[in-house]
Amino acid sequence: MSANALDRLVALLSKLPGVGKKSAGRMVYHILDGDPSYAQILGEELAGLHKSIRRCGICGGFTETDPCPICSDAGRDRSIICVVERAQDLRIIEESREFHGVFHVLGGLIAPLEGIGPGNLSIGRLINRLGRTDPGQEVKEIILALNPTVEGDTTALYLQKVLKDFPVTVTRLASGLPVGGDLEYTDRLTLSRSFRGRVKV
Amino acid sequence: MSANALDRLVALLSKLPGVGKKSAGRMVYHILDGDPSYAQILGEELAGLHKSIRRCGICGGFTETDPCPICSDAGRDRSIICVVERAQDLRIIEESREFHGVFHVLGGLIAPLEGIGPGNLSIGRLINRLGRTDPGQEVKEIILALNPTVEGDTTALYLQKVLKDFPVTVTRLASGLPVGGDLEYTDRLTLSRSFRGRVKV
Repeated sequence: MSANALDRLVALLSKLPGVGKKSAGRMVYHILDGDPSYAQILGEELAGLHKSIRRCGICGGFTETDPCPICSDAGRDRSIICVVERAQDLRIIEESREFHGVFHVLGGLIAPLEGIGPGNLSIGRLINRLGRTDPGQEVKEIILALNPTVEGDTTALYLQKVLKDFPVTVTRLASGLPVGGDLEYTDRLTLSRSFRGRVKV
Repeated sequence: MSANALDRLVALLSKLPGVGKKSAGRMVYHILDGDPSYAQILGEELAGLHKSIRRCGICGGFTETDPCPICSDAGRDRSIICVVERAQDLRIIEESREFHGVFHVLGGLIAPLEGIGPGNLSIGRLINRLGRTDPGQEVKEIILALNPTVEGDTTALYLQKVLKDFPVTVTRLASGLPVGGDLEYTDRLTLSRSFRGRVKV
């Protein structure tokens, strides 16, 4: 069965994250067995994706309009900027409905071993945002919503240093036991962080 | 972040087998972060899939040409037909390079509870293939490569009855312990089959 279009599609789909050759094959057969209009619409959406989605000039998130709906929403609190590593982190935080300020996408984390230094991240643009606010709209707090990993810690530390000359409070998301977690199955580092970050009840 | 093209694509991708909303989101961000030509090519392949792939008029497998490369390959042994449930099973068997005959795709298995009877499967076309062979090209064996499930067993039994009036040997793939498996973790039914199907060493 050397159906070329089929093999090409399997090869393309297996480049997606979390998709191997087997699951790509399952997808293609599922599409072939199904309504042709599904493949047509999915194909058109994909082919047009990069045309319709761009990066927001302010926060760096993916958007159809520039500035993005969040940055142009007058109801959002512009005095708090939540700094995230990637645009998808922004979506996860939005879905939690916990945060009502604005965002800033760094575009990565400092990782010297992978050759990613502060210069590769949009730190300069973040600092520009601090200076370029209208009176009464000053940024008061920067929340670092970076993963609690070595790279996240390094980047948080660097941003803390860079931002210490600005009249802005820098905070970081709490790290500790996940809700529903079990002490027995918690690693030593997480346990240690949850001790250091213990709160009065 | 109400980027509509993005949300539409996540909704479309999460209809694929094994893809949830979260993994669909990861895929879309992966595509957005990547080379725009990837999304373009993937989109075009998908949109054109149903145009370039059809079903083979002989075996029922997916193909770009009709008859498919297997059915039109003079090097394949036309005296053995391997009967499979779905076109993807054909691909799996081809990849094992174990079988050098031709195929027949049933298009499903008999499942009365789901309303699938023998009339919904391409059994009539299989029987037609037995009669319509050139001299010296008679079908001698039909291998039922159906899953060892209730539906697979029912369908195999039905085909056995239907085919018993034809001068053809009907066989079924051996069922038993998987290679590398462990007796301790083998279910009772599989163990029972591997006893009944035991072979002399």
